[in-house]
Amino acid sequence: MQRLITQTLLRRFLNKCPTHTDRLISLSARMAKSKFEYVRNFEIDDTCLRNCYIVVRLDGRNFHKFAEDHNFLKPNDDRALALMVRSATSVLEELEDINIAYGQSDEFSFVFKRSSTWFRRRASKLMTHVASQFSSSYVFYWGEFFSDQPLLHPPSFDGRVVLYPSNRNLRDYLSWRQADCHINNLYNTAFWALVQRGGCTTAQAEERLKGTVAADKNELLFSEFNINYNNEPSAYRKGTTLLWGRTDEASTKKIKPSNGDERQVLVTRSRRQVTTHHCDIIGDQFWDEHPDILEPDD
Amino acid sequence: MQRLITQTLLRRFLNKCPTHTDRLISLSARMAKSKFEYVRNFEIDDTCLRNCYIVVRLDGRNFHKFAEDHNFLKPNDDRALALMVRSATSVLEELEDINIAYGQSDEFSFVFKRSSTWFRRRASKLMTHVASQFSSSYVFYWGEFFSDQPLLHPPSFDGRVVLYPSNRNLRDYLSWRQADCHINNLYNTAFWALVQRGGCTTAQAEERLKGTVAADKNELLFSEFNINYNNEPSAYRKGTTLLWGRTDEASTKKIKPSNGDERQVLVTRSRRQVTTHHCDIIGDQFWDEHPDILEPDD
Amino acid sequence: MQRLITQTLLRRFLNKCPTHTDRLISLSARMAKSKFEYVRNFEIDDTCLRNCYIVVRLDGRNFHKFAEDHNFLKPNDDRALALMVRSATSVLEELEDINIAYGQSDEFSFVFKRSSTWFRRRASKLMTHVASQFSSSYVFYWGEFFSDQPLLHPPSFDGRVVLYPSNRNLRDYLSWRQADCHINNLYNTAFWALVQRGGCTTAQAEERLKGTVAADKNELLFSEFNINYNNEPSAYRKGTTLLWGRTDEASTKKIKPSNGDERQVLVTRSRRQVTTHHCDIIGDQFWDEHPDILEPDD
Amino acid sequence: MQRLITQTLLRRFLNKCPTHTDRLISLSARMAKSKFEYVRNFEIDDTCLRNCYIVVRLDGRNFHKFAEDHNFLKPNDDRALALMVRSATSVLEELEDINIAYGQSDEFSFVFKRSSTWFRRRASKLMTHVASQFSSSYVFYWGEFFSDQPLLHPPSFDGRVVLYPSNRNLRDYLSWRQADCHINNLYNTAFWALVQRGGCTTAQAEERLKGTVAADKNELLFSEFNINYNNEPSAYRKGTTLLWGRTDEASTKKIKPSNGDERQVLVTRSRRQVTTHHCDIIGDQFWDEHPDILEPDD
Repeated sequence: MQRLITQTLLRRFLNKCPTHTDRLISLSARMAKSKFEYVRNFEIDDTCLRNCYIVVRLDGRNFHKFAEDHNFLKPNDDRALALMVRSATSVLEELEDINIAYGQSDEFSFVFKRSSTWFRRRASKLMTHVASQFSSSYVFYWGEFFSDQPLLHPPSFDGRVVLYPSNRNLRDYLSWRQADCHINNLYNTAFWALVQRGGCTTAQAEERLKGTVAADKNELLFSEFNINYNNEPSAYRKGTTLLWGRTDEASTKKIKPSNGDERQVLVTRSRRQVTTHHCDIIGDQFWDEHPDILEPDD
Repeated sequence: MQRLITQTLLRRFLNKCPTHTDRLISLSARMAKSKFEYVRNFEIDDTCLRNCYIVVRLDGRNFHKFAEDHNFLKPNDDRALALMVRSATSVLEELEDINIAYGQSDEFSFVFKRSSTWFRRRASKLMTHVASQFSSSYVFYWGEFFSDQPLLHPPSFDGRVVLYPSNRNLRDYLSWRQADCHINNLYNTAFWALVQRGGCTTAQAEERLKGTVAADKNELLFSEFNINYNNEPSAYRKGTTLLWGRTDEASTKKIKPSNGDERQVLVTRSRRQVTTHHCDIIGDQFWDEHPDILEPDD
Repeated sequence: MQRLITQTLLRRFLNKCPTHTDRLISLSARMAKSKFEYVRNFEIDDTCLRNCYIVVRLDGRNFHKFAEDHNFLKPNDDRALALMVRSATSVLEELEDINIAYGQSDEFSFVFKRSSTWFRRRASKLMTHVASQFSSSYVFYWGEFFSDQPLLHPPSFDGRVVLYPSNRNLRDYLSWRQADCHINNLYNTAFWALVQRGGCTTAQAEERLKGTVAADKNELLFSEFNINYNNEPSAYRKGTTLLWGRTDEASTKKIKPSNGDERQVLVTRSRRQVTTHHCDIIGDQFWDEHPDILEPDD
Repeated sequence: MQRLITQTLLRRFLNKCPTHTDRLISLSARMAKSKFEYVRNFEIDDTCLRNCYIVVRLDGRNFHKFAEDHNFLKPNDDRALALMVRSATSVLEELEDINIAYGQSDEFSFVFKRSSTWFRRRASKLMTHVASQFSSSYVFYWGEFFSDQPLLHPPSFDGRVVLYPSNRNLRDYLSWRQADCHINNLYNTAFWALVQRGGCTTAQAEERLKGTVAADKNELLFSEFNINYNNEPSAYRKGTTLLWGRTDEASTKKIKPSNGDERQVLVTRSRRQVTTHHCDIIGDQFWDEHPDILEPDD
């Protein structure tokens, strides 16, 4: 009660003397601040449930228009895909506890370890850090990939957090995104073949593909454009998976033993590094080959 | 039950034939995708309570080091402050329903209208969009402000969402941040005067200021360095408030009446524009002068 | 790491010697407990946003059947309504910070003060306490109201929490419930008049009322059954509002002044008490007459 | 916009004519209700994460005093424990998808299947239903267990929801509660032996037990009171676990074959029933014997 009275009096005082505010603030800023500080308690705890994988997925905002403004090639622009991967790599390198990431088109998913305690598992911190680091990297590295195409305006990515309690759930999430990649890429490959090489308008191409299943599109690509879809680059068909690997770095170093002459020796150092993969992640093989990505369901 | 059996069988099938996955995927991708799609239901609704102001605050990550790496001037670097303001302006322009924003040092708060329904008020969407747009803008506009200082690595900002149910709560939040600005800036002004002009080491400066109140620091600045703190730039002392204003844009336009000769006329168009303020926002005066920022407590 | 190893070893040990568990438990229960205690961290904070009214609404589960099983009179059973009010009164008396409650049919809403800090505003604690106290009271007081009708099985009520940031929002919530009361009661009054006094089957009564508006039902009640709906008991038409009031309790007390003889004096003590109202709470009058229910929008 | 104007006009109208409210309500209740209904959107979704066990734990409120008021025996009152178990059984029977429950002292934990979709997994619905059903049952069945002790006032239990993503986490939760049971019961057994049979005051008993470990208390019970703690009733030492079992119910039924005389036959019907256990649930044996409680970590 005493506290409330003081707070009210202070507020009235502050409100009534705007012309003296400068002096007042100098004298009582710390007191004022402590009176306002109650607003901190309005912040709500958004800790992620323990022992669940934390997936942060980013999606480009209005990327259809962004791609047009920047003359992205269709159906896949190697520069744009490489820039996405470079930005995602920056996220893995700068943030902690991300064991695997998967991207396709203008989206990227980042998987935090189920045991991670980074930022006390606060959902807001995790997703804004991912969104921020990815976005600033996208602009920072733009020139490395688009040497002839200036960036016209800063892009934006939105993010979300989803929790997965079991290895099966997480694998099904990643399978879902890769199945989505496959479906979209097969469609886009056929669509743009019809437009770019088949002389169709976009409306005609859309009409041609309406109601077709995967086998139809494969057949169309092969019979009309001599394209074997399975020979298309795996980066287009499978998307990109990022993992942590180790590489040996060899360097020479001069040593001088006490009992001899200085000489050069070869030194090999193992370094942790983000590695890039364009393989199937739906079947068991990938997971058998990388047993360290998942933590046991325990 | 039927559904579960099918899902299990499909999974087993997919797992057992990795070598045929390419063909399989072509044939059954859509089916596969629909089986995996249940993972969407793990996403949790994070709609913000209606009729509350939604504040998104960004804070620079490791900005002490970032400032050193990029030779920011002490205690205030005009280029860095202007870049923060430019990035925040980009957020107001590209996102919707932000009526006011306030920034100081390496932080910026954005206030969404209490009646906003942008992105269905989903907290994750709002905060990641703010973090992303701000971060990409920071890199995009870097060169405009730091012409002689290249950006060495992409910066990162984390974000959080806080809801405020009443106008008083929102004003107290903004007052809290401005009181914080004042306290920190007065300290930093005194600290760096001691170091840069008073020949102190940083440890000595820290020691000198230990236990001093605002009046002591004001006195110290005046008596030892002839600095009247109240004459320091208001951008340093008050931080920066962004609002929407209107400016009249005059342009000439050629018209040709049907019954006469072509002639030039002056056309004035009112345009919505982000405006920048460095004034006190704790007292009532600012709010009386800008009655449209707040919506009634109703 | 050390901790994890110990935990795993302990778990293995415990798992392997079920026959010795008794002894083991005696020796290491405290150690065991401390190893399991990590599960506490899975509890999620569900603090209600500050400065919002916290409404807990209870609804009877399967009360249609419950009413039939216990021969509730139609359309309104005075005993059942009085028992609901008695149970709700018990909630106000035993819990803290409830300023107003409103009930009708088999539902009751309890409004915690916007400034309440009871149970640290944890939603789960507030709603389970309300649901528990109400339910145990319902059974406890059953016999006071249903002297001739034994309770056949324990009833159940579900609850939910909704936050309202402004006085207008809270009043609109209560208005919504009272408008619901009115609509349902007018319908039920007409429906059961047709069935009980008009000789209709329930299907016929339903058919008669299909598509009618309030005025039609008023007219039907008046012309066919000579019922002026506005003369029906206000408890049926308006539901029940519970408030805190004060009553003066007079008692006699013996005193013996040092300079005189013992004598009796009348002592009046003001006591806080739950009061019952069946008035309109949609218009301003009620709120003007009870200015202490709402706290300012500040 | 149109909508808002209408709403405001309506509100003003309603506020201005309290004396006509009855008529107004009759005419426009449905319209009024639809204007107020926006308040429904303030309800927040609290769906529990899929594929996690949902644990609802109830705790008695002020049960120390409740136990004294009702003359509960120390350290364990068989009637009170049996009433807790009876109330918990009612929860399993009336609610859905609870596979196991564990109780001790004045607390009970209920575990919903990880695949449950009861009440769309809404946390508020699950926990209030448990709290309500338990509380009404506690009063309803009181007389069955406390024939000589009337219930003086309705008791209250608070509840909470905790999610566990893995079988290990769930088992550790239950182990935590059983370890807690053991520690408290050993202490209480020793404490009340000292008071009831050793002639100590409660303060002296507390002092005697300060700093003792389990072995000390076992030794004290055995040497001073000839109590072998391991021979104490397992219901006290292990608490109570509730499971679903099947019992065969035999009954006789008259049949009359077409080609013969009527005769009686014995019919056995298997019925699902809650079963009560007082065994160790920390080790593997219990879980090996009841493989259906847990669902696979998948």
